[in-house]
Amino acid sequence: MGIEISDRIKNKALLAKVTTAEAAADLIKDGMNIGVSGFTPAGYPKAVPLALAKKAEAGQAPLKVNLWTGASVGAELDGSWAKAGILGKRLPYQTNNEIRNAINAGKINYTDLHLSHVAQMSRYGFLGGGVDLAIIEACRITEDGGIVGTTSEGNSASFVQSAKQVIVEINVTQPEELEKMHDVYIPLDPPHRQPIPITRADDRIGTTYIPCDPNKIIAIVPCDIIDGTRPLAAIDDDAKAMSGHLIEFLQNEIKQGRLPKNLLPLQSGVGSVANAVIAGLVNSPFENLSVYTEVVQDGMFDLIDAGKLVVASGTSLSPSPDALKHFYANIGKYLPRLILRPQEISNSPEIARRLGVIAMNTAIEYDIYGHVNSTHTLGTKMMNGIGGSGDFARNAYLTFFFTNSVAKKGDISSVVPMCSHIDSTEHDIDVFVTERGVADVRGLSPKERAKVIIEKTAHPDYQPLLRDYVKRAADKLGPVHTPHLLDEALSFHTRFIETGSMKVK
Amino acid sequence: MGIEISDRIKNKALLAKVTTAEAAADLIKDGMNIGVSGFTPAGYPKAVPLALAKKAEAGQAPLKVNLWTGASVGAELDGSWAKAGILGKRLPYQTNNEIRNAINAGKINYTDLHLSHVAQMSRYGFLGGGVDLAIIEACRITEDGGIVGTTSEGNSASFVQSAKQVIVEINVTQPEELEKMHDVYIPLDPPHRQPIPITRADDRIGTTYIPCDPNKIIAIVPCDIIDGTRPLAAIDDDAKAMSGHLIEFLQNEIKQGRLPKNLLPLQSGVGSVANAVIAGLVNSPFENLSVYTEVVQDGMFDLIDAGKLVVASGTSLSPSPDALKHFYANIGKYLPRLILRPQEISNSPEIARRLGVIAMNTAIEYDIYGHVNSTHTLGTKMMNGIGGSGDFARNAYLTFFFTNSVAKKGDISSVVPMCSHIDSTEHDIDVFVTERGVADVRGLSPKERAKVIIEKTAHPDYQPLLRDYVKRAADKLGPVHTPHLLDEALSFHTRFIETGSMKVK
Repeated sequence: MGIEISDRIKNKALLAKVTTAEAAADLIKDGMNIGVSGFTPAGYPKAVPLALAKKAEAGQAPLKVNLWTGASVGAELDGSWAKAGILGKRLPYQTNNEIRNAINAGKINYTDLHLSHVAQMSRYGFLGGGVDLAIIEACRITEDGGIVGTTSEGNSASFVQSAKQVIVEINVTQPEELEKMHDVYIPLDPPHRQPIPITRADDRIGTTYIPCDPNKIIAIVPCDIIDGTRPLAAIDDDAKAMSGHLIEFLQNEIKQGRLPKNLLPLQSGVGSVANAVIAGLVNSPFENLSVYTEVVQDGMFDLIDAGKLVVASGTSLSPSPDALKHFYANIGKYLPRLILRPQEISNSPEIARRLGVIAMNTAIEYDIYGHVNSTHTLGTKMMNGIGGSGDFARNAYLTFFFTNSVAKKGDISSVVPMCSHIDSTEHDIDVFVTERGVADVRGLSPKERAKVIIEKTAHPDYQPLLRDYVKRAADKLGPVHTPHLLDEALSFHTRFIETGSMKVK
Repeated sequence: MGIEISDRIKNKALLAKVTTAEAAADLIKDGMNIGVSGFTPAGYPKAVPLALAKKAEAGQAPLKVNLWTGASVGAELDGSWAKAGILGKRLPYQTNNEIRNAINAGKINYTDLHLSHVAQMSRYGFLGGGVDLAIIEACRITEDGGIVGTTSEGNSASFVQSAKQVIVEINVTQPEELEKMHDVYIPLDPPHRQPIPITRADDRIGTTYIPCDPNKIIAIVPCDIIDGTRPLAAIDDDAKAMSGHLIEFLQNEIKQGRLPKNLLPLQSGVGSVANAVIAGLVNSPFENLSVYTEVVQDGMFDLIDAGKLVVASGTSLSPSPDALKHFYANIGKYLPRLILRPQEISNSPEIARRLGVIAMNTAIEYDIYGHVNSTHTLGTKMMNGIGGSGDFARNAYLTFFFTNSVAKKGDISSVVPMCSHIDSTEHDIDVFVTERGVADVRGLSPKERAKVIIEKTAHPDYQPLLRDYVKRAADKLGPVHTPHLLDEALSFHTRFIETGSMKVK
C-alpha cells in the first residue's frame, strides 16, 4: 500500500477496515447521497474520489451520485467527478472551473444554499433523503472510533452522525496535532435545540473529534495528497485602497463610541480582495483582535505574526500553498490561536449576532439602492455561490460589502441600476466599499442610498450614467420610494451582452 | 381633564407629571428622533400625536421630526403626522394610506428594516443619533416608575432605555390586567451579549414592565382612544384553498417524520390571507399547537377557543375591531395563553432557528426561480415594508410564502419571470403556496424550481407565458444555471404599465 497509517488508527479493531482507494470506491453506488468533509479546498477526501473518477472514466462505474460538501472542494473531487460526468445534484458551494462549467452547461443540478443551513437541512430530511455515505478526511481515528478532521470541519460531524456508512481517508500529510484546532458541537434539532453556549470567539464547547460508531466505518483508506489550496493574487493598489478605507472607517466608529477599541470579532469572505483587506490590518492601530469567520486565510497568519490576533475561529484553514507550507512548519506557534468548528456553528446567525461580528464580504455587483449580487454573472451564469455571506451579512453588528468599482478593464461597472441577481437585500447592508471610497448607508432611505452609493463608490466613467438613470426615473415616475425605469433597469447588463461594454459608445 | 388616571400611577411622585396632551405636545421639538410604542395598529400613543398634529395643522408647530416605531401605528399617529407634513424620517414599517402616499410622493424618507434589527441599530447609534424622546402607551406605571405596556411591546423597552426623555400616555381603554401578557427582556449589546434563554414558545424571561428611571418621565397624559385595529377581509375560497394546501402539506411532513405531530411553533404574517391560513387550522387534526410570531390575530383566538393552542407568543395583539371587543370581554380566558415580547425577541433569528418555527408570510409576487417581493409594487412604489418576514423566513425550520396566483381581477400574475424587487431570496424559501397548489422547492436547483413553481402554483392564464419565457431563455443561452432573458425579465411588469394587464393581448 505504500502509505503507513496503522499508527494513526487508535481503535485497533478498525485496522481490519484499511483498504485501497479502489476497493473503497467500489462501495459507492448509483444514486447515493454522499456527504463529504471539505470546506474551501481544505480537508476534503482525495484518494477515493480520484479512484472512483478513474473507474468512471474507464467506463467501469456507470453511476450518478449526489454530492453534499461543506463548501468548495479541490480538483480531486469536484474537478474529477464533474469531468467523469457522475454528478447528479451538487450542493451547497463550489469554486472549481470544471464543475462550474458543467453547472452552467446544465449537466449538474446545483443548489446554492446558505452555508449555515446545510447540516440542519440534511438532518431534517429536506434535501431528498439522508446521507447514504459519508467520506471524511481525517488525521487520526481515536480509540472509540472518533474521527479527527484535518484542515476543515465543515459539515463532517453532521454527515457522519446521519450517514448509514462512513469511509475515512487518513491523510498522512495532515499532522495529528491538527486535532488541537477542532471543536465539534452538533446542536439538537427542534423542538429540543438549546442555546449554543458561545459568548466569545475563543470559547470551546465540544469535542476535538467527530463521535462515530465504529460499526458504521466500512473502509479506511490512506492518502498522501496535499490540500489543493489556491494561490492569492498579489495585493494591488485597489485592494490597498479598500483596506485603507476600512481602517479609516473603523477608526471613526471607535471615535464615535460605536465600536470598542479592539473592534468586534472580524468575519471576512474568501478570496484575494477579502484577504488583502484583512492583511491591511497588520499595519493598523488595532490590537487584541479576534476573528469569528468561515475561512482562515493568509492575512490572519500575518495578524498572528504581528501579535495582533488573539484567536481565529473558523470552519476551514485554507491558506495559499506557500502559507500552508509555512503553517505546517510552524504549527506549534499557530495551533493555540486557531479553532475549527462545524459550519453551522461558525456561520450561526445566533452567534454572529450575539458576538456582533464585523462582516466583510465581496460582491460581484451591487445596485444603487443597496442590493448585492454575490453569485451570478449577467444574472444567468453561476460563479461560486452565496457561501456564508448571507449568514453573516444579515446578522452582523456591522455589514460591509467590498468590490472593485469596475471589472474587465473598465467595461463592467460593479455599481448598476438594478442587480441582475440578488443574494443580499437593501435591508441587510450597512456599508459599501470600493477603491473609490465608502458609502455608509445605515438608516438611509433608497433615494438617499442611491446618492451616496453613486457619488462615493461608483467609478467616474459610470457616475454620469447612473446619475442620469436616477434623474430620468424620478422625472418619469415622480419621487416614488424607489425610482426605477423597469425597461432600462437591466440595461447596463444588456449593453454589455450586446457591445462588450457597459459604457455607452 | 375628564379622564381619571391617578389610580393607575402607583409611583405617587409621578402624579405631578400628569398633564394635557397639548402641553405634552409642546415638549416635542424640531429635529427630534422620537421612538414610540406600537406595532401594527396596537398599543401606540394617540392623544399626544393628535395634539401635535393639530398644532402643526394650525401653523403653531413648524417642525420636522423623525419617527421610529415598532411597526405600523394607527391613523392618530402615522396618518395625522403625515398629513401635517411634520415627518422627516420614518422607520421601520407602516401600513397607513396617508403615510404611504406621502412616502411615494417623496415627502418622507422611509427606511424599511428587518423588524428584529431596529432596537439594536438604534442602541448602536446607527440610525442618526439616539432616541431623543420616547412616547409610550401604558396601562399603568409601577411604584418604581416601571411602564406597563398595553397591546404591543415592539421597541418600547429599548426606546425607553435609550431615550433622554419619556412621555407616557395612560390609555384607560386598556385594562391594567394586560400587564400579565408582557415579558420584557433587553439583551446586552456586543461584546457583552448572552444567549437569550428561551427554549420554548411559552418561556418567560423578563419583567412585566419596562424599567424606567422616573426622572426621565417628563409628562404623563391620559388617553381614552381605542386601538385603531383593522377589519379583516372575509375568508374567501382562495384563502380556504391555501389553508387546505398547507394542512395537507403539513400532514405529509408529519407522515414522513419531518415534523412532530403537534408541529413546531407557528409564525404567521399580518393580514387577511395569513389570518385565513391560521384560522383554517381550527378544523385541522393538529393539537397542542404553539405560536411564536409577531402579531396575534383573530385566527389565534379561534385556535384558543378550539382548545388547540397552548400559547401565542408575539410582540403585538392586533385583532380586528370585533375580535378586540371579544378579547376585552373575555380577557381572563385569553391572558394566560398570551405573551408579548420586545420585537427583537419575538423576531429573533436566534430563537426562530432554535425553536424551529414554521414561517408563513405573504408575498406581493415571487419569481420562477424562487425570489420574493414583499414590499414594492412594480419595483418602485412602497406598499408596507418587509416587516418580520425576513427575520422568520431566513431562520425558520420550514419557510412558506403565500399569495393569490393573480391580482387585479387577473391582470397581475403573482408569479413572474423576475421579481421587480427582491426582499427574500432563492436561498431562503422552502415552499410557495397559491390557491392553485403547492411548490415544494427544498433542495432544488433554479431550473427545477422554475418547473414546479410554474406548474403547481401559477395561474393557467400565465403558465403558457412563463413556460415560453423559460424555454426561449434556455434556447438562447443554452442551459445556464439560471436562464433569463435580461431584456424581457421585467416584461410582465412593463406590459402591465403599458396596457393595464400582464396578459399578452
